[in-house]
Amino acid sequence: MTHRAGRHFLQIPGPSPVPDRVLRAISTQTMDHRGPDFAEVGRTALAGMKSIFKTEQHVFIYPSSGTGAWEAALVNVLSEGDEVLMYETGHFATLWKKMATRLGVNAEFIEGDWRGGADPDRIEARLRADSAHRIKAVCVVHNETSTGSVSPIAQVRQAIDAAGHPALLMVDTISGLASIDFRFDEWGVDVAVSGSQKGLMLPPGLSFNAVSEKAFELSKTGGMRRSYWDWQEMATINGTGYFPYTPGTNMLYGLNEAISMLHEEGLDNVFARHQRHGAATRAAVRHWGLEVLCRQQGQESGVLTAVLMPSGHSADNFRKVALAHYDISLGNGLSKVADRVFRIGHLGDINDLTLAGTLTGVELGLRKAGVPHAAGGVAAAMDALEDTRITALAAE
Amino acid sequence: MTHRAGRHFLQIPGPSPVPDRVLRAISTQTMDHRGPDFAEVGRTALAGMKSIFKTEQHVFIYPSSGTGAWEAALVNVLSEGDEVLMYETGHFATLWKKMATRLGVNAEFIEGDWRGGADPDRIEARLRADSAHRIKAVCVVHNETSTGSVSPIAQVRQAIDAAGHPALLMVDTISGLASIDFRFDEWGVDVAVSGSQKGLMLPPGLSFNAVSEKAFELSKTGGMRRSYWDWQEMATINGTGYFPYTPGTNMLYGLNEAISMLHEEGLDNVFARHQRHGAATRAAVRHWGLEVLCRQQGQESGVLTAVLMPSGHSADNFRKVALAHYDISLGNGLSKVADRVFRIGHLGDINDLTLAGTLTGVELGLRKAGVPHAAGGVAAAMDALEDTRITALAAE
Amino acid sequence: MTHRAGRHFLQIPGPSPVPDRVLRAISTQTMDHRGPDFAEVGRTALAGMKSIFKTEQHVFIYPSSGTGAWEAALVNVLSEGDEVLMYETGHFATLWKKMATRLGVNAEFIEGDWRGGADPDRIEARLRADSAHRIKAVCVVHNETSTGSVSPIAQVRQAIDAAGHPALLMVDTISGLASIDFRFDEWGVDVAVSGSQKGLMLPPGLSFNAVSEKAFELSKTGGMRRSYWDWQEMATINGTGYFPYTPGTNMLYGLNEAISMLHEEGLDNVFARHQRHGAATRAAVRHWGLEVLCRQQGQESGVLTAVLMPSGHSADNFRKVALAHYDISLGNGLSKVADRVFRIGHLGDINDLTLAGTLTGVELGLRKAGVPHAAGGVAAAMDALEDTRITALAAE
Amino acid sequence: MTHRAGRHFLQIPGPSPVPDRVLRAISTQTMDHRGPDFAEVGRTALAGMKSIFKTEQHVFIYPSSGTGAWEAALVNVLSEGDEVLMYETGHFATLWKKMATRLGVNAEFIEGDWRGGADPDRIEARLRADSAHRIKAVCVVHNETSTGSVSPIAQVRQAIDAAGHPALLMVDTISGLASIDFRFDEWGVDVAVSGSQKGLMLPPGLSFNAVSEKAFELSKTGGMRRSYWDWQEMATINGTGYFPYTPGTNMLYGLNEAISMLHEEGLDNVFARHQRHGAATRAAVRHWGLEVLCRQQGQESGVLTAVLMPSGHSADNFRKVALAHYDISLGNGLSKVADRVFRIGHLGDINDLTLAGTLTGVELGLRKAGVPHAAGGVAAAMDALEDTRITALAAE
Repeated sequence: MTHRAGRHFLQIPGPSPVPDRVLRAISTQTMDHRGPDFAEVGRTALAGMKSIFKTEQHVFIYPSSGTGAWEAALVNVLSEGDEVLMYETGHFATLWKKMATRLGVNAEFIEGDWRGGADPDRIEARLRADSAHRIKAVCVVHNETSTGSVSPIAQVRQAIDAAGHPALLMVDTISGLASIDFRFDEWGVDVAVSGSQKGLMLPPGLSFNAVSEKAFELSKTGGMRRSYWDWQEMATINGTGYFPYTPGTNMLYGLNEAISMLHEEGLDNVFARHQRHGAATRAAVRHWGLEVLCRQQGQESGVLTAVLMPSGHSADNFRKVALAHYDISLGNGLSKVADRVFRIGHLGDINDLTLAGTLTGVELGLRKAGVPHAAGGVAAAMDALEDTRITALAAE
Repeated sequence: MTHRAGRHFLQIPGPSPVPDRVLRAISTQTMDHRGPDFAEVGRTALAGMKSIFKTEQHVFIYPSSGTGAWEAALVNVLSEGDEVLMYETGHFATLWKKMATRLGVNAEFIEGDWRGGADPDRIEARLRADSAHRIKAVCVVHNETSTGSVSPIAQVRQAIDAAGHPALLMVDTISGLASIDFRFDEWGVDVAVSGSQKGLMLPPGLSFNAVSEKAFELSKTGGMRRSYWDWQEMATINGTGYFPYTPGTNMLYGLNEAISMLHEEGLDNVFARHQRHGAATRAAVRHWGLEVLCRQQGQESGVLTAVLMPSGHSADNFRKVALAHYDISLGNGLSKVADRVFRIGHLGDINDLTLAGTLTGVELGLRKAGVPHAAGGVAAAMDALEDTRITALAAE
Repeated sequence: MTHRAGRHFLQIPGPSPVPDRVLRAISTQTMDHRGPDFAEVGRTALAGMKSIFKTEQHVFIYPSSGTGAWEAALVNVLSEGDEVLMYETGHFATLWKKMATRLGVNAEFIEGDWRGGADPDRIEARLRADSAHRIKAVCVVHNETSTGSVSPIAQVRQAIDAAGHPALLMVDTISGLASIDFRFDEWGVDVAVSGSQKGLMLPPGLSFNAVSEKAFELSKTGGMRRSYWDWQEMATINGTGYFPYTPGTNMLYGLNEAISMLHEEGLDNVFARHQRHGAATRAAVRHWGLEVLCRQQGQESGVLTAVLMPSGHSADNFRKVALAHYDISLGNGLSKVADRVFRIGHLGDINDLTLAGTLTGVELGLRKAGVPHAAGGVAAAMDALEDTRITALAAE
Repeated sequence: MTHRAGRHFLQIPGPSPVPDRVLRAISTQTMDHRGPDFAEVGRTALAGMKSIFKTEQHVFIYPSSGTGAWEAALVNVLSEGDEVLMYETGHFATLWKKMATRLGVNAEFIEGDWRGGADPDRIEARLRADSAHRIKAVCVVHNETSTGSVSPIAQVRQAIDAAGHPALLMVDTISGLASIDFRFDEWGVDVAVSGSQKGLMLPPGLSFNAVSEKAFELSKTGGMRRSYWDWQEMATINGTGYFPYTPGTNMLYGLNEAISMLHEEGLDNVFARHQRHGAATRAAVRHWGLEVLCRQQGQESGVLTAVLMPSGHSADNFRKVALAHYDISLGNGLSKVADRVFRIGHLGDINDLTLAGTLTGVELGLRKAGVPHAAGGVAAAMDALEDTRITALAAE
């Protein structure tokens, strides 16, 4: 490919740009995964992921894409023919449902309009109607990467409890974890699913399950036939810092570095940073006169912002122009909103000035592609950033 | 951990030491896996792996350990209750059988003594007896990593054909591929399984299937319920260089670099190098008065050499001493041969002088651990190396 | 230091941000600088630097800072007591004069106001007055890093010729080379001085002299006592790709990669990019109501822009605030303009969106530091960028 | 160049192989060398180098080759016409003398046979004869890289003192520092010279002076005209962690990492390791029936071993064969011993097994090149290593 000067702006909603510290960690020579030094690597990663999920229960790390951890979540606790309740928050909820169906699970969808998170009231109503308790699990996407909407997980748990229903709560937080608030234990989640290439700032290639004692017990006798994704064998060996099959050693080096970085900044600071960047991005979008796809106030994501194109304008053409002229990668609209939506990623290792560069790329791209908009979105975002910065990054 | 000067000798039979070129490739910034630049990365990797497997049929790349590709091989063509014939070459054959059983496959084992490769005659006899053709696949490990024995794959195919049996030939070449000769198409293999961390000189985290047209057709309607490992969805999207879910982008960068290195050296030179190193290692072992585990002449592996300890001496204690004193990681004996065998890896990116350092580590370790042996094994290996070096690495 | 999320904006006028490709090249294992493989590294670097200087005469590469190459330029052709004519374009011209004086050269300064490049007419007038031809060299800074003004080197040569004066033309293009146009042979330069950490996009640690045949001949018998900086010994050995003392091997790896990148983009494209970024930056500065230090139209630098603070406001305090709040490093005002000027670097490996982020950092910093300015400078820069982008970076 | 499998054995007496930790440190993004974060980098490097030189007096760090620090040592304290007493330990002593002469210093040589270190008695005798105290400095090479002999620096100081002579003691420890014992303060050295690419395990590109108060005072008014190498300006600014001109930022990152590694191992352990490796190498050489160039018992270097070829055999041809066949770089014989000597580097980041690989490369190379020798040198080295290893690297 032709040389393009300067740093590419990788502003899709994941993979997010990998910090140099993490890239250097990953480039450390591979070690013996059965040797004494590895135990420290493995234990640090497992304990670190517990601190990120905010759980004292179980965490599993797979050498796989996030998609693999979706499968792991399903096959460890569900059997063929089991019923689960899923919520159509967008494309990824739909894909998870499709996977469940392929695996023989009877997945029911609460339909959604892709413009907000899951509605706990509708979940509660459905569960109340299931007096026979045939629904084994409620599956919700925390941060819907295709729409930029966040589901209120704590309230979903409250809805399940209010319905007096024993269903497990399974949550996909692939793109939410480590960018926006997630509290596995406090919120009463039973199985959470995540991946390395979003808030964890790694390349793709590791995925995660957090698992409650309840779900872990269920998996001892339940679930489908499985091998690679099995929690039980993993749990036995993880106790010593090792894995039942060869782990992704170099990615684990990177994971440990990334977790250190997150704690150096402080998770609450990480979350606040993403909230600011989401707000600033929405200020820009609204100034441009474009519409944010998420229309549920309070559910707009700090991870990404999906933007509706004006009628008659192709989102994909706009993205192509922005890439060709300004070397910025933006996310595309998926399935139902294909070519009608583009997505601005502001997750992971990003700061104010990179966001400003990103929004400049969007605004100049809109201009170059002939998409009607009011100039000045970047300035609006700057106002938003300026208003919300409380403390300096460092002593002045 | 305490600082230890100099380079660690990672001489287990995989992960093998990752060359600096590959580590640097892996540390390249992650890109948009849906963007136009990625197609080149994906296509190069897929075509490159075909050249390594020596196939013009299908290749699939998974973000997973090699264990995952074992599972992929099984679930795409076999159904619950299907019968398969496996061959007990050692620990990894046993693990693959255990996995098949967990997945509901009815796996029959031809028992072996762990001291050689699969015997085609015994396979042929068993297949002839299966006049009803209930056996759906014959599963053989090409290079048994636990014993250092190589199975004659071409002859296994001949045995199947001689028996007039329609069973698929499935081969685990996780540790053999790209270190010793493997010819998917020529040998008539139907499904091959491999991983990144052996002859491909990468960290663990990618796995591979090569698939014949016959197996691919079978998978269209057959196989178990599956999602992550499904070939069909993968095949559709791979055609354009993309993947159905987020691929292991940075590992693919490394894979493309590794494949380039293998072709720069020439696969035949790579294979000859490993044969020389295997022969030199065995010369050392025999000089020491120790026994090579593989006792089938012509089946000794160029990838690793498993060595039997003298009676009454602990292999694990010896490995611990060698690691503590000489900073060398050697492989342990597994299950049946635990503590009775140690394994010397000589696979991947290794040359004569590194092998000499390795064998020095073994010899000094034996001495330090008080294991009876005849001194001079390194010199014997040097003689073997000197005798077999035909051409210079570079113009003198 | 505390963790700060995202990428630091290193926008001083050098060192400029080092591209990942160059960092990876530098991290390649050191080789034998007397071995056969090194010759290729050395020859590539020497030939490459000729292509960058645009010369077919002599180029020398020193393991040293740019300051060292200043010294090399002086000591190879001048003797103690020699007279040279220097031009006060700013701080670095002053430092070079100070160095000349320390080395015993009688350096005369044409005084300047630090707000433009060297004036060829004044040089010509001074040389005409030197009818005895006591002035041995005219020393001019091409791109004055302290002020952001560019001297018209071709016209300086014309002035020397018009005066019929035999003085050598010595040019400091430490910060100009490879960011803005420089033509050693065509412009009739005799000695040029440069460094690695500016347009060449390397870390600091290599410096360069380009040398005309005339100067090279002079150095055979002339110049001061010298050893490290001597051209003659260097020239003899460089012919084979080697160096008289241990060269900066890893920096040379990076240099070769950087030169490749510059040619991949095309030097004319590199220069045009920097001109656009200079113009866009000045548009922002003027919109803010601030003054660009350089007030000679056509001499404003594409490398950096020095900005005068409003009276009563501290430039250093502003820079401190910008760094603390927005993680951006800006250049300080030096000596005569200390605390009255800040400098925005836009050299080396930079693109439109990074410039936008940079200018956002300046604008938000001005706001946060309470410096009076008109908001909207970033938008003005965006307009300038949009107007001047002719072609796409890549096929749309 | 053609691909050669496995790791190259870079066993010249410097540059020594750079550890991956150091390479990664060097590949960290360049920072603002005037910004607040840099002060920590600079102070750590300066303090670290004091700990390595074992001095509480002055240390200076130059972006240059070691050759530059030779020049710095001379020009800061000597004036044209000054007399110095140098000692011909080998090629590098000769080069330093040549440099001194070029700089106008009147350098007198005590002739040596290149087969041992400097003889303190001869120095004392010469100084006693200099009753007028015209000799300003005694210059000795600590570890002569061309011969593998170590001069007894403490005894040279005693000789100077015994003669009641005020001459400064200047020591080149370019290749000795951080591999073999050196004690600047305790031994009464006045100026020491070193470089980055030997015991410090960095690429070439940084050089060092350690300076006594006495020499530092002298330099305030004495020395030659100088700028780049001047201690005084450097000292003023170093106090805050900064440098008068742009320092070699990325090399300083690497330096700080390397110093950390040396202290993690412990300097005494580092020295003992090199002594063991020198002894083992000499055991091999003697077994081969070859002659070690250094014939002064107790002065053989732990850094490198120079080996005399049998009469009628070309050392350079042998090195070429070893490189072509076994991918090992060995040092050549220089000037007086050109083609008659080869040098085995065992400095820096090396361990037992790498040394074994190295000696294997030498022995196989001798065999391949048809150089008469007794086989078994590697085994002899192994015996030496085994006898002298006291403690394990890590807990067994």
